[in-house]
Amino acid sequence: MAESIQTRIPGLTLRFAAEGDVRIILGFIRELAEYEKLSHEVVATEDTLRASLFHGRRVAEVILADLQGQAVGFALFFHNFSTFLGRAGIYLEDLYVTPAVRGKGVGTALLSFLARLARERGCGRLEWAVLDWNQPAIAFYTNLDAQPMHDWTVFRVTGPALGALADRF
Amino acid sequence: MAESIQTRIPGLTLRFAAEGDVRIILGFIRELAEYEKLSHEVVATEDTLRASLFHGRRVAEVILADLQGQAVGFALFFHNFSTFLGRAGIYLEDLYVTPAVRGKGVGTALLSFLARLARERGCGRLEWAVLDWNQPAIAFYTNLDAQPMHDWTVFRVTGPALGALADRF
Repeated sequence: MAESIQTRIPGLTLRFAAEGDVRIILGFIRELAEYEKLSHEVVATEDTLRASLFHGRRVAEVILADLQGQAVGFALFFHNFSTFLGRAGIYLEDLYVTPAVRGKGVGTALLSFLARLARERGCGRLEWAVLDWNQPAIAFYTNLDAQPMHDWTVFRVTGPALGALADRF
Repeated sequence: MAESIQTRIPGLTLRFAAEGDVRIILGFIRELAEYEKLSHEVVATEDTLRASLFHGRRVAEVILADLQGQAVGFALFFHNFSTFLGRAGIYLEDLYVTPAVRGKGVGTALLSFLARLARERGCGRLEWAVLDWNQPAIAFYTNLDAQPMHDWTVFRVTGPALGALADRF
């Protein structure tokens, strides 16, 4: 198991997840999807997560937060790249804290740890996406001086449209 | 030099960029930033691009489009990760075609090649961000069945705010 990193909060430690944590990670992903009203989009399984996160080219990394030895939240991130900065950044795909322990600083510990990691790895930015109706999250992020990129919209090609586009080549 | 890949368009080939292409890539990045009215954000240099793209952990890949042997556009992309799908995707950071050759299918060739690459690499999505005022680009993408993710906003921490957040850990 990876080394536990002590936070400022008594009893709260962080660690890089290991292969044995996939069940916990998938559980958190499903809880987050339920909160985001997007459960119908979750097709990930323990096997796909194990393959993507812990074998071959590891495309993403996971930090787990443990409170009194119990996993209470996670951050899953990967490296993106800014052509304007000419260097990598950190993109936070998922941040989740179980409802029972919210308001204790677990989310801030995870985000500030990622900011420290960004500094250590020479990254210029820390970014993530938020659902526009998720006001508690937006208030939390704004309070940390995060800036909303209001003038950009993400476009996505997936499913049959992705195959159709590939066939146009 | 990487193998040239023939497209459906006579004289138009694609290839993975090599270290010797950094000057061309930086030139395209600056032209794109000028079009996006964001030139003030460009601090990338040939050295930072060379280090990030062609040495160590290569965080992003670049496809160059050549028309009659002349570089006329590029796509810079990296792999992101969807926790809901449980697998990687392709994120297109920059797509640029020089004004003189627009409307000839260069952009479609680059995007459809990326869709083919997504299929080959087992990726579930192809995504990118567009400035909301960039109507020609939005019309082009919508025509390819790309879906705008209107209910999400990207948040960013950068510069002094990133250091301040790191110091909170």
